[in-house]
Amino acid sequence: MELFFAQEVEGGLCRLDAEESAHCVRVLRHREGDELHLIDGAGTLLRCTLVEASPKEALARIEERIPRWHDHPYHLNLAVCPTKNMDRYEWMAEKATEVGLDQLSPVFGERSERRVLKPERLERILRSATKQSLKARVPELAAPVSVMDFIDAQRSAEGLKLIACCFDEGEPRRSITELLRGSDEHTVTILIGPEGDFSPEEARAARAAGFRPVHLGASRLRTETAALVAATAVYLERGSNSTI
Amino acid sequence: MELFFAQEVEGGLCRLDAEESAHCVRVLRHREGDELHLIDGAGTLLRCTLVEASPKEALARIEERIPRWHDHPYHLNLAVCPTKNMDRYEWMAEKATEVGLDQLSPVFGERSERRVLKPERLERILRSATKQSLKARVPELAAPVSVMDFIDAQRSAEGLKLIACCFDEGEPRRSITELLRGSDEHTVTILIGPEGDFSPEEARAARAAGFRPVHLGASRLRTETAALVAATAVYLERGSNSTI
Repeated sequence: MELFFAQEVEGGLCRLDAEESAHCVRVLRHREGDELHLIDGAGTLLRCTLVEASPKEALARIEERIPRWHDHPYHLNLAVCPTKNMDRYEWMAEKATEVGLDQLSPVFGERSERRVLKPERLERILRSATKQSLKARVPELAAPVSVMDFIDAQRSAEGLKLIACCFDEGEPRRSITELLRGSDEHTVTILIGPEGDFSPEEARAARAAGFRPVHLGASRLRTETAALVAATAVYLERGSNSTI
Repeated sequence: MELFFAQEVEGGLCRLDAEESAHCVRVLRHREGDELHLIDGAGTLLRCTLVEASPKEALARIEERIPRWHDHPYHLNLAVCPTKNMDRYEWMAEKATEVGLDQLSPVFGERSERRVLKPERLERILRSATKQSLKARVPELAAPVSVMDFIDAQRSAEGLKLIACCFDEGEPRRSITELLRGSDEHTVTILIGPEGDFSPEEARAARAAGFRPVHLGASRLRTETAALVAATAVYLERGSNSTI
């Protein structure tokens, strides 16, 4: 099943952007009258008919809307410090989207070596992984902030808030699976630190803002692997009762 | 902590190969008398003293042996059909090693598009991921065989044997987490199919050889992501009670 990304423009019509139009019309050679499956990026699958097979700006008429298509039964916000090597971060963004992700929040820790991030490439990866894995909601890419600012903004946020760090600071860490099993919160927010881990100040601030310290088991995981293991833990605990 | 890979040659001495010697002596500038941490690839950490700082063939004297160093409490054999794009398979090999893997068995299914595999690159990746994630046992890379031959060889094998397919064939699939929780077998073998899935004949043969059909939840996962999610499910169920 091939999915295209498009926004509804007016009265039951969708316009594909230049890239999607070219792919649809030039590469896949779709013609007027063909059935297309579009996603709006906000969770709805649109079953459409192609009405204008323009390779620059194709138009499709909506025949049916299927909301919450292939959605998962939780809301996951992964706040992950960018890795030195961006390939690894991009890989994580792709895989976490496949598994199930709602928001990716790049955060810079005190010990982060990388301090810049190009959102455009990440946006593309999130969108393409959404289509490839047959989902209709593209994870939101939050604006990068410092770990401290992220924690501060989360102070009054609802849900299960977890911080994965490699040391005990105050409250001893518990296994992520154990904490997930003991909670029925719909929203799960997980903070994953940089190569050099969080600083003790960051861990303390997170605890004060309601984050519970967790560990991800006995293996030493890279930042990007830790993020994916955390996303997979949520997926397996919350979303694996149904099948594809 | 920097680890080197080396075999014991005789009487408490280890010899580093040309690549490890160059890295140790030329890049990291280790000198005679320095403490080194070696792994033998079979599960033992060797605390050593460098006695010959040759950049081509360094020698180290074993001071202490720590067997089963950072080992995990299960034996996981992932039998995964190679992906069309080998980068994705290599990525999976790296990440599964980080999370916890004992054997990687490349298998070719009826619907596999890729039929060749270069073991040398995979061996290097398995070894380097082992060192990077501070483990002492390098996962074994099995010789590639067909899915049918793999199933046949597993017929009398012990342990929990699972096949992840995307359709029901006979026995309905259950969630991998559920089957893992209901079993205390030490050895877990998981078959992961190619892009085009297993054929019904392969699924039937697997069932007849004692494989239980499982699903990996509601997300549509690529082959390499499915393999990592399966490895992570075992890791979270069996190996996440202790911390790093």
